[in-house]
Amino acid sequence: MENSAKTMDQIVALCKNRGFVYPGSEIYGGLANSWDYGPLGVEFKNNVKKAWWKKFVQESKYNVGLDSAILMNPQTWVTSGHVGGFSDPLMDCRDCHARHRADKLIEDAGGHAEGMSFDEMTEYIREHGIACPECGSKNFTDIRKFNLMFKTFMGVTEDAKNEVYLRPETAQGIFVNYANIQRTTRRKLPFGVCQIGKSFRNEITPGNFIFRIREFEQMECEFFCKPDTDLDWFYYWKDYCKNFLLSLGMKEENMRLRDHEKEELSFYSKATTDIEYLFPFGWGELWGIADRTNYDLGRHQEASGKSLEYFDPETNERYIPYVVEPSLGADRVALAFLCEAYDEEVVDAGKNDTRVVMRLHPALAPFKACVLPLSKKLAPKAEEVRAELAKYFMVDYDETGSIGKRYRRQDEIGTPLCITIDFETVGDDKTAADGCVTVRDRDTMQQERVKIEDLRAYIEKKIEF
Amino acid sequence: MENSAKTMDQIVALCKNRGFVYPGSEIYGGLANSWDYGPLGVEFKNNVKKAWWKKFVQESKYNVGLDSAILMNPQTWVTSGHVGGFSDPLMDCRDCHARHRADKLIEDAGGHAEGMSFDEMTEYIREHGIACPECGSKNFTDIRKFNLMFKTFMGVTEDAKNEVYLRPETAQGIFVNYANIQRTTRRKLPFGVCQIGKSFRNEITPGNFIFRIREFEQMECEFFCKPDTDLDWFYYWKDYCKNFLLSLGMKEENMRLRDHEKEELSFYSKATTDIEYLFPFGWGELWGIADRTNYDLGRHQEASGKSLEYFDPETNERYIPYVVEPSLGADRVALAFLCEAYDEEVVDAGKNDTRVVMRLHPALAPFKACVLPLSKKLAPKAEEVRAELAKYFMVDYDETGSIGKRYRRQDEIGTPLCITIDFETVGDDKTAADGCVTVRDRDTMQQERVKIEDLRAYIEKKIEF
Repeated sequence: MENSAKTMDQIVALCKNRGFVYPGSEIYGGLANSWDYGPLGVEFKNNVKKAWWKKFVQESKYNVGLDSAILMNPQTWVTSGHVGGFSDPLMDCRDCHARHRADKLIEDAGGHAEGMSFDEMTEYIREHGIACPECGSKNFTDIRKFNLMFKTFMGVTEDAKNEVYLRPETAQGIFVNYANIQRTTRRKLPFGVCQIGKSFRNEITPGNFIFRIREFEQMECEFFCKPDTDLDWFYYWKDYCKNFLLSLGMKEENMRLRDHEKEELSFYSKATTDIEYLFPFGWGELWGIADRTNYDLGRHQEASGKSLEYFDPETNERYIPYVVEPSLGADRVALAFLCEAYDEEVVDAGKNDTRVVMRLHPALAPFKACVLPLSKKLAPKAEEVRAELAKYFMVDYDETGSIGKRYRRQDEIGTPLCITIDFETVGDDKTAADGCVTVRDRDTMQQERVKIEDLRAYIEKKIEF
Repeated sequence: MENSAKTMDQIVALCKNRGFVYPGSEIYGGLANSWDYGPLGVEFKNNVKKAWWKKFVQESKYNVGLDSAILMNPQTWVTSGHVGGFSDPLMDCRDCHARHRADKLIEDAGGHAEGMSFDEMTEYIREHGIACPECGSKNFTDIRKFNLMFKTFMGVTEDAKNEVYLRPETAQGIFVNYANIQRTTRRKLPFGVCQIGKSFRNEITPGNFIFRIREFEQMECEFFCKPDTDLDWFYYWKDYCKNFLLSLGMKEENMRLRDHEKEELSFYSKATTDIEYLFPFGWGELWGIADRTNYDLGRHQEASGKSLEYFDPETNERYIPYVVEPSLGADRVALAFLCEAYDEEVVDAGKNDTRVVMRLHPALAPFKACVLPLSKKLAPKAEEVRAELAKYFMVDYDETGSIGKRYRRQDEIGTPLCITIDFETVGDDKTAADGCVTVRDRDTMQQERVKIEDLRAYIEKKIEF
């Protein structure tokens, strides 16, 4: 099934009905664009995170991990520029009072707002006669800055000195810990620090299901290297990221690498590439890979007064490391894998028989297998097999309905293998137990007979990546 | 080494110097009582979380997982009682302006503040002549309520209608999703829902390292069952929790189960037990196991107007499920395992040779093994072995210093196995490679020769639990 034939409605409905993703706080009417990962969603998203950690930390000889706090000393966000500059240009329609992002109005009208001043945006909107998408009026207020950081108060009084922010990115937690990590791990350059964690942005216009949400999860790596080796590492990580997506089954045709033009680059960045994915709603950014030079550590050194220089034992020089940052949105890439996996397959055109099948990479599937007793009489044996496999994998169990119906239910949630316990498995008075089960493959629908004691290795092989 | 002989200073110093836990935002002077998990800490804490998930979700035939958002519809916290009642009784010293929790002053003076009204607390403090611990004055302000929830604003304006809270517990995320989960998983009672995630409490007096922090992680399970079966399940989960801690190496002598007295119980609770651990600073609560009856779902049903009743297909009755809640602090139990593991062992009294060894259960150790080339010439083979094992486990690599020193470094971070590549491993012109390595055990310091191809299974067996 082509991506262009899939709709967000199909994906959202499946997610909600099968327990991947529910609207947040739904019994209270929800909370604008917040989402909860259900029993299948939490397994699936954890698998995405584990896959990233495996490739970026566990298997990498360069990288280590970190888990820094969401609430940080607010000076961090002054230094990083988020207090001063992390804002949207907002304007209201004076007639219908709808609130708009000026840059979005311009881009929806085919313009490019990147790098424009407020005056230039106002000018552009007037010149091009852009109207309020809600009511058609052209009577807008002036543009004002709206900072996207959530703020709260730590301590007893709600005054400025107690103001702290919910981090808008995990990256700064890595930068402020750079010296501690380098010292305690005794790492030499190059090395990277990887982190998975929640970030918060008070977006004016969240949307597209879990693509743009206010509370989201990031998987970021800050890779520290010698000056002038940064561009080489930039290309290294760009390839590495792309291969990660390919290795988990994302098709090349649904992916594109967009290099930022010179004008689009932040002033400190030598190169930036976005990996974009073709969602049912169009191309959307998954991963930003940026050569950030020594900008971040340099700013933190200056602001904190603490040396963030690296002593190079090979050259006896001291310098601030350069940084390459591959930064990925966990919820976005999860959504991309869900979209990629969704398929409707005609099993028997004559009987009008179509199955929905989530062709998730087995490493990402919520359940690795489902154990099905052919008859309820076989439940004890089935439970024994389930319990044994559950020591190693997430395994589902289903004894309700016909085998065909049960297969379809598992297809729809992406379970790569169905394991059926039948009467041959346990034998009876006349026939000895064969100790085998029937394993049915989600994608090919082929079945094969496998010994119970070989199941663990069989599944392990299936989920390798 | 007895727990009573360990000090928090030893634990904190090791954590900071080896990269388990750093002070948060340290280059900016920190942020009161916030902590970041370093490269070893993130692996260790992830292992604690994975172990819990394995026992409470993956292996349990009753439970499923959830990952709900931190920001919820604020009505949730009105219903749960947190808006009205989740507060500390604060009073200031009029002379030195120190701020105190009235209940803590009373308890430090040997009293019991649980259940006291503000008037009763004021009375008690006056009657017992309790003075300001800072300056000795008895000139206090009145007691006032201080709500412990962090609040922030979602959307463009900072007014009451945009006020949302950072959740003070993960449990309510489970309750509001109860009906969605039951429907989409088609589970019958009894079943439980488990969740790991951050919670936030604006504590007046955080402290004891990562024991009481404002941003912390919880591992909570809400187990839904039929009315009148709740006490049976309460005992089931109490045992299950205790066994979980024992299976990961926590000694029974450092653990105690404290049943709440009738007067101490919340009015809706039939029974509550705290599992406490003997930290170097004294007994501290790790796990609360509570029979919460049908209180939570009942309240949410009433407030939301949505039915949270369960239709029992066996009896054809509808009722609100009863709930047993085992609620564990991830940072606290991580700290308990660190304290439990810390040991100083006299290796050779004559030479005054003592080693620090973290006797972490291998399942919890940050690295499962460290690969050590005996000589730098052996680095290529050692890297080959590391890379192969890193497909399955977190593996360290160290080629610096004497083997003895390297062993000690690994002892100090709890690595259960050291794998040394020597010249026999690779052979030379005269001798054929034996394809074996020397594996040294952290606890016994015994060495044994193991084939490279058997290493994976060797380590797998070691980390089982």
